[in-house]
Amino acid sequence: MAMFGKVLIANRGEIALRVHRACREMGIRTVAVHSTADADAMHVRLADEAICIGPASATDSYLNIPAIISAAEIAQADAIHPGYGFLSENARFAEIVEQHKIVWIGPDPEHIRKMGDKIEAKRTAAMLGLPLVPGSDGPITSTEEAIKVADAIGYPVLVKAASGGGGRGMKVIHDAASLPGLVQQAKSEAKAAFGDDTVYIEKYLSEPRHIEFQVFGDGKGGAVHLGERDCSLQRRHQKVLEEAPSPALNADQRAEMGEIVRQAVAKLKYRGAGTMEFLYEDGKFYFIEMNTRLQVEHPVTEAVTGLDLVREQIRIAAGLPLSVTQDQIRFEGHAIECRINAEDPLTFAPSPGRVTDFHAPGGLHVRVDSALYDGYRIPPYYDSLIAKLIVYGANRNDALMRLRRALEEFVIHGPKTTIPLQQAIIEAPDFIDGNYSIKWLERWLASRAGEG
Amino acid sequence: MAMFGKVLIANRGEIALRVHRACREMGIRTVAVHSTADADAMHVRLADEAICIGPASATDSYLNIPAIISAAEIAQADAIHPGYGFLSENARFAEIVEQHKIVWIGPDPEHIRKMGDKIEAKRTAAMLGLPLVPGSDGPITSTEEAIKVADAIGYPVLVKAASGGGGRGMKVIHDAASLPGLVQQAKSEAKAAFGDDTVYIEKYLSEPRHIEFQVFGDGKGGAVHLGERDCSLQRRHQKVLEEAPSPALNADQRAEMGEIVRQAVAKLKYRGAGTMEFLYEDGKFYFIEMNTRLQVEHPVTEAVTGLDLVREQIRIAAGLPLSVTQDQIRFEGHAIECRINAEDPLTFAPSPGRVTDFHAPGGLHVRVDSALYDGYRIPPYYDSLIAKLIVYGANRNDALMRLRRALEEFVIHGPKTTIPLQQAIIEAPDFIDGNYSIKWLERWLASRAGEG
Repeated sequence: MAMFGKVLIANRGEIALRVHRACREMGIRTVAVHSTADADAMHVRLADEAICIGPASATDSYLNIPAIISAAEIAQADAIHPGYGFLSENARFAEIVEQHKIVWIGPDPEHIRKMGDKIEAKRTAAMLGLPLVPGSDGPITSTEEAIKVADAIGYPVLVKAASGGGGRGMKVIHDAASLPGLVQQAKSEAKAAFGDDTVYIEKYLSEPRHIEFQVFGDGKGGAVHLGERDCSLQRRHQKVLEEAPSPALNADQRAEMGEIVRQAVAKLKYRGAGTMEFLYEDGKFYFIEMNTRLQVEHPVTEAVTGLDLVREQIRIAAGLPLSVTQDQIRFEGHAIECRINAEDPLTFAPSPGRVTDFHAPGGLHVRVDSALYDGYRIPPYYDSLIAKLIVYGANRNDALMRLRRALEEFVIHGPKTTIPLQQAIIEAPDFIDGNYSIKWLERWLASRAGEG
Repeated sequence: MAMFGKVLIANRGEIALRVHRACREMGIRTVAVHSTADADAMHVRLADEAICIGPASATDSYLNIPAIISAAEIAQADAIHPGYGFLSENARFAEIVEQHKIVWIGPDPEHIRKMGDKIEAKRTAAMLGLPLVPGSDGPITSTEEAIKVADAIGYPVLVKAASGGGGRGMKVIHDAASLPGLVQQAKSEAKAAFGDDTVYIEKYLSEPRHIEFQVFGDGKGGAVHLGERDCSLQRRHQKVLEEAPSPALNADQRAEMGEIVRQAVAKLKYRGAGTMEFLYEDGKFYFIEMNTRLQVEHPVTEAVTGLDLVREQIRIAAGLPLSVTQDQIRFEGHAIECRINAEDPLTFAPSPGRVTDFHAPGGLHVRVDSALYDGYRIPPYYDSLIAKLIVYGANRNDALMRLRRALEEFVIHGPKTTIPLQQAIIEAPDFIDGNYSIKWLERWLASRAGEG
């Protein structure tokens, strides 16, 4: 298959820019789509063509499937890249794209669907030989069953909504006495939040890390893993800072778990980029979910492997083979990404508005992915991520020193940003020691608030 | 020896910032020095301390040795990094620094002196086993001698001023008949320009490339080479765009010539960073000079080796061993640097003044070294280099595609810049083919001017 002549980018912000850059560097023309609020956005300015697809509200524009398909047809785009978020994990959208004879730069819609359902995803993961958190094999249908499962696993256990996310419909249960009430509460919350009261039970991990493996498949059983990212620094289930490799793993553990993941992806005949997310505690991995798209934090993997992940996605979608074999992939040095959000660094209140001054840090091994520019007005309608700062160093300490100086140089005036928060995090002794679980950041934030 | 606590940076602009960044990343405090014209410069803003050393004219500030030494003493700096240009190759300054018990981050003053004299440098190079352009073994003392030498080499030959540079006191001689007159002209020009009419004769190369090898020595006979840079794209002996590796060399040639250079540096017991510059024609190298300092174009070497050259300089000056052995150094991928000058891209007239908009390109494998910022006023007193754009790719074509898109994204409004020139150069078929000598750019510029 010939390489695409033109790709429509169904997204906005830094990730639209990221995809535009990859296309440009491959000689592919780009079509930006945008809401009325984004007419002056960087991705619109740089693309070869730009098409307005609706009003500011994402539902009316970036989630508006007919408008995006029309734009692709008008522009005669050969393919659509969905970025992350919005429609990137919408199997129906992927199917509609393919029905319109446009190439979907993403996995088979069946895989998106399978991995989008948490219970189905775990069933699949189990079949593929991935380690799971011990728990109910599927939905809990009665309190009796719940008690039986919890007894078998041992307390504490976790009850979770099948359609859930963001902590809603989730409860920690410490003993059999409180179980019936908490399961009922979880079901009610799940029903209210997702219109589905299906819940399941699993082992509760007390101080796990979030470690995920980047994978690529060629759709025919060929697969590679690109090592792991440690994304344990989270606030309300939102990642704040990511690094590769994980300070908790050694090369043997990486190779061993990487091979398990690679084999699973091969067995699935998965196509394109994906991420297998795990909790990690006491030397053991527990599958949590698979994201069937590019991740926000993909640049740390690019830094330690030297590969261009968006280019790889586009190549695979165009029918080309994987550009590397597993034994050609090398992991070198250490990379850290800080997410910079337009938020108050203390209260996390969104802080949109006009950027009165923007100056990104430069120099050796410093990468900035941002769609901001001087005078740009950050609209209040979308995600607050405005920049990603990625540094690379020969080792974790070098990367950390470089990150410190790069954050120091970063100027974003106008909106409040989380730069001061990131600066404080990287001075925390636990962080410097690489000694943090997914619970660390919230505890640390609470202790700081207490001091203040 | 312990690492320095504080380093004074005796320079300005992007290279002062480059050195500041390396210090910061090593936990070293920085002292900026500046002229009155540079009070608002980026290197002054970011340094831990800043000291004004004199009026705008470089002679009164950046070349003002007593003022710089005083600043170092006042600030109690442990060491001085001279950057490039200004006092970086001034052996007397290096000696004075050392006499004041301040560490000189650079080579032994004796080596600076030896390599600063062109005839002495060639004598040393010959002794070290480096290939020279065939020519007179030293100054030409009579017309008869000149004719004898030229006959032995074969015409055309080149007559050059011993103290020269920038093409002054340099003539191409095509036959014996025109020799006496042209030698006399060269001597008169040399006398007028440098106060020294000493000239020498050498083989004239018709379409050579400029290929230079980056080296490091530990001062005790330990040495490594970091591969070559191709700097053939020059206008009036000023480099415009540099790349590594050279499109003209293969890995065997690199290894073979690199080893010759490495042995020479080891034999010299050279300390710190240096560059051996060669002309290259028909598969042969001809030593032209050794620069005993960091080069403007060092980032392309950093990109293909992954090493931090300024950190290496600082480590060596602090008495640490070389951080790598020759067999640990790997050359991977391809890097290109564009020098962006505040100049009219057609006439090359300097274009200082206020920067009304500055936006550097970002994303994967794009590095910008620049001390510009929005609202900065480029002073008219110094070199017109305002930014270096360095891109890296898996191969030359990938790097070129990335460079194209990065130049497209680069916004510098206010002064005129050479961005449009760089954009035109990289579209030229000869450049795309890697098929250019040191004469190519001026020919190409002349042909464009003819078209206009």
